[in-house]
Amino acid sequence: MPDLLNEILKLRTRERVEMLSRNGQIFHVIMAQQFLREFIDEICLLADMIREINSSRHGADFLQRLLPHRRAMIYFTQPSTRTFLSFACACQILGMRYNEVRDPKTSSEVKGESEEDAVRVFSQYFDVIIMRHPMEGFSEKTAHMINRMHRTIPVINGGSGRDQHPTQALLDIYTLYQSFSGGSLVRRAAGIQIDPFPGKVIGMVGDLQRGRTVRSLSYLLCRYPGVTIHFISPPELGIGEDILEYLREHEVEYHISQELDPLLPELDAVYMTRIQDEHDAMAGQSSRIDYSRFYLTPDKLERAKPTMAILHPLPRRQEIHVDCDADPRAKYWQQVQNGMWMRAALLAYVFNTEERIRSYYLENYTY
Amino acid sequence: MPDLLNEILKLRTRERVEMLSRNGQIFHVIMAQQFLREFIDEICLLADMIREINSSRHGADFLQRLLPHRRAMIYFTQPSTRTFLSFACACQILGMRYNEVRDPKTSSEVKGESEEDAVRVFSQYFDVIIMRHPMEGFSEKTAHMINRMHRTIPVINGGSGRDQHPTQALLDIYTLYQSFSGGSLVRRAAGIQIDPFPGKVIGMVGDLQRGRTVRSLSYLLCRYPGVTIHFISPPELGIGEDILEYLREHEVEYHISQELDPLLPELDAVYMTRIQDEHDAMAGQSSRIDYSRFYLTPDKLERAKPTMAILHPLPRRQEIHVDCDADPRAKYWQQVQNGMWMRAALLAYVFNTEERIRSYYLENYTY
Amino acid sequence: MPDLLNEILKLRTRERVEMLSRNGQIFHVIMAQQFLREFIDEICLLADMIREINSSRHGADFLQRLLPHRRAMIYFTQPSTRTFLSFACACQILGMRYNEVRDPKTSSEVKGESEEDAVRVFSQYFDVIIMRHPMEGFSEKTAHMINRMHRTIPVINGGSGRDQHPTQALLDIYTLYQSFSGGSLVRRAAGIQIDPFPGKVIGMVGDLQRGRTVRSLSYLLCRYPGVTIHFISPPELGIGEDILEYLREHEVEYHISQELDPLLPELDAVYMTRIQDEHDAMAGQSSRIDYSRFYLTPDKLERAKPTMAILHPLPRRQEIHVDCDADPRAKYWQQVQNGMWMRAALLAYVFNTEERIRSYYLENYTY
Repeated sequence: MPDLLNEILKLRTRERVEMLSRNGQIFHVIMAQQFLREFIDEICLLADMIREINSSRHGADFLQRLLPHRRAMIYFTQPSTRTFLSFACACQILGMRYNEVRDPKTSSEVKGESEEDAVRVFSQYFDVIIMRHPMEGFSEKTAHMINRMHRTIPVINGGSGRDQHPTQALLDIYTLYQSFSGGSLVRRAAGIQIDPFPGKVIGMVGDLQRGRTVRSLSYLLCRYPGVTIHFISPPELGIGEDILEYLREHEVEYHISQELDPLLPELDAVYMTRIQDEHDAMAGQSSRIDYSRFYLTPDKLERAKPTMAILHPLPRRQEIHVDCDADPRAKYWQQVQNGMWMRAALLAYVFNTEERIRSYYLENYTY
Repeated sequence: MPDLLNEILKLRTRERVEMLSRNGQIFHVIMAQQFLREFIDEICLLADMIREINSSRHGADFLQRLLPHRRAMIYFTQPSTRTFLSFACACQILGMRYNEVRDPKTSSEVKGESEEDAVRVFSQYFDVIIMRHPMEGFSEKTAHMINRMHRTIPVINGGSGRDQHPTQALLDIYTLYQSFSGGSLVRRAAGIQIDPFPGKVIGMVGDLQRGRTVRSLSYLLCRYPGVTIHFISPPELGIGEDILEYLREHEVEYHISQELDPLLPELDAVYMTRIQDEHDAMAGQSSRIDYSRFYLTPDKLERAKPTMAILHPLPRRQEIHVDCDADPRAKYWQQVQNGMWMRAALLAYVFNTEERIRSYYLENYTY
Repeated sequence: MPDLLNEILKLRTRERVEMLSRNGQIFHVIMAQQFLREFIDEICLLADMIREINSSRHGADFLQRLLPHRRAMIYFTQPSTRTFLSFACACQILGMRYNEVRDPKTSSEVKGESEEDAVRVFSQYFDVIIMRHPMEGFSEKTAHMINRMHRTIPVINGGSGRDQHPTQALLDIYTLYQSFSGGSLVRRAAGIQIDPFPGKVIGMVGDLQRGRTVRSLSYLLCRYPGVTIHFISPPELGIGEDILEYLREHEVEYHISQELDPLLPELDAVYMTRIQDEHDAMAGQSSRIDYSRFYLTPDKLERAKPTMAILHPLPRRQEIHVDCDADPRAKYWQQVQNGMWMRAALLAYVFNTEERIRSYYLENYTY
């Protein structure tokens, strides 16, 4: 159905967002543009409540009774371990059952039919499809295809080609939120509105040209007025002009830089990314650039703020020295775990259980 | 153990069926010849009750408490996604746990031992083996081998070579049942005996020579007196003479035809199958036959009865145009889902929980 | 981190064992040297209680409520079906959820990062890592690496290279225990101390040079004074001198022999192992040795004691004729199943639920 995809892409973003909604709330989770400030705040808070509730046996049992009657198809035709496991664990936390299709090439039955029909079959067995696909827009097309079926179920985009990875963007901003709030968003749940973002300075470091996570996170940060962003990279790997234009439109202060060291003392958070040097050979860049300027080491950390949060979407190579792992400012392992809480929050949201979670939390955790 | 298999195949069908029984009821589910009319009626009704019970949260919880202490080995050494997922979901609906072995070639341990010993090992860990295997008769042989073990567990045939696919035949007849009864078998559960089959006209369309599903369904339809069958195919791909002889023995009215269009207005159900044109090249058939005569399109459907049910075992290629999907007569997506309900019913039956399901149903759903 | 592994291997066994402990009890389950007599007795008894409890529906439900809030990563980068399924079923018996990574080569994300970082990621999602790895010492290294993380979880060694397979050794001794006790350890649970080992004669047969299971079991048997061991093999495939020295140190009586037949009437248990003839070609051994001397057949069994237990770690080839399977002395299928109970016992132990299991058992099963 190339026609359907072309049809969709001709629409304005506003119309596309609307077609992914139901009763005024997000139904299919496909792209970062669906996330307004209110939604992001709510889903981060929900993730944080699930994290805390799950830490007691009583709470874990409560969570597992939420969705045992729901089954997820995790359809990941692009290799992934971290994101796959994160969704699988999220299902398990909420008591959901899941099945997986990882490599449709090994299945003659899937081969025998169109991928569209395979997805239609899934829609008969499962209550949600979580999808990672190499083709841009495939999850959005799937959402529309399923909208036309008698049995309509939500589709969650777990990464589609190079364009979108919306759940990663949400877990990144949740980790920033958590770090800036001193580890917990609890007080917000008690009704105290605290916005920790204004005045914060965030550095994005590394290969900003080819990393989709920095792009997505930048989009989301536009919802949080008062932040300042430093884009720090070799000039050859700078952030795209489209992102900069979007930031200007939303009046977000940003700076472009090629050195991490002098900026380090100013940063409240640093978002490290992998230099994708496997792509370098063609451009011959490797021999010209000193990448070590964009690496974090324990001695460099001595000059950073004692509260600076270090994030990394993983996998890492040399960007962060292993000896930094023990530093309390290293948040990347927590960030990995946050992926699990955030995906659990999205599933809870999609199946309309957030009110029950909030009630349980308020009854058991406020003081 | 080629000896064991040869020994089995020398027996009469009646003896083979008996060796698969225990206490006068089906223990191993291996071949369509095991299914008498009473059993088919009962298992279709059970599938329908499970479908309805599962639609409420309370009912879904009831079902999941039936078999949480049972573990299934889904041993599928032939590629399959649809059937595999269908069994996996069926387990989950009843609260069962399962494990899978999909490709024994990747396991050096399985390689290191005979497949017979691998199956014996499974019989120590699991409570049922669900098996798809490329070798004809392998699941029947397994059933006999396990009958000789100290710990005896049921074996369910999920497709063995070209000869049998008994659970597909059951889900097909369940879908016909459901369609002819107006969507639900509920009233039967309330004690009202209704037999919707007499007088019904069923068309079987496509590659009748090489499709095992049409063959199996024909066998089962002999249990339902009063139906008329039209076999509609190119002359080169006609139904086997053995099936026709079997139908004559059971006094089922049938007709042979090479055109779908003129018959369409008469049919109460049409069972479309894929023209297996990948086999054509050798016979050079492709160039001579106009397959489009055996395809369903929205405009052809205008001439069909408003209640005609359209079935297809999937995967489809061109046999049914995508635009037919939205037609209320299209039952093939429901048919896919019915596979899940039917397999859940078989598992419930094999573990003797059908009485509990019936009681729950009668308590909660009759009016 | 080759440094870390080298650092560990320089330590004395006592120090290594201590680094795997927490609060004076085993935390990471890595090597047979961790198992003292008291622990082995306790874990065998726990396995036996789980086996009996699981046989009633009420008991199975009790077990499944023990650890539903725990998630296991089964990380098996070496091919395995039996051990993998055994751990998977053990998790299911205790209500645990699990995920698996079987072949990290197919995952570009795991490829993109060091295996150490992959393990660190698992430690964020899961509550225990069960690991089979081709590299000697990798699971011990992982345990140490995780000891340095903020979130510390136990590591269980499911087989590491050629050196250790500690859970196999435990299930083997549990099977001996059970066989010598007449099928159940129940009476011990009621407070009656019975030690069935003194005076027992055990034959180890086959390829004693290259089979790690015989080596591990020999280590454990040193904890049980009063047993006599016969090592029976072709001279080329004899047991290692290091094992013999260890037995002498612990004053265990042993004999070396090249013929099974004359010893058979004396044995209380025979532990058969596979002649690993796939390695023979290089040495040209195959043509010289009559392996059939080391095979068990029904007629040979006529000369053995009526209570002799036959064990085999599987997979088998010719070592035990299939017709022996029906003999009540054949314990190898029970032994396979015991792997499941033993692994469930280890998981129950590691998560500190053995007291709850013991209480349940004493309340429901003593008379």
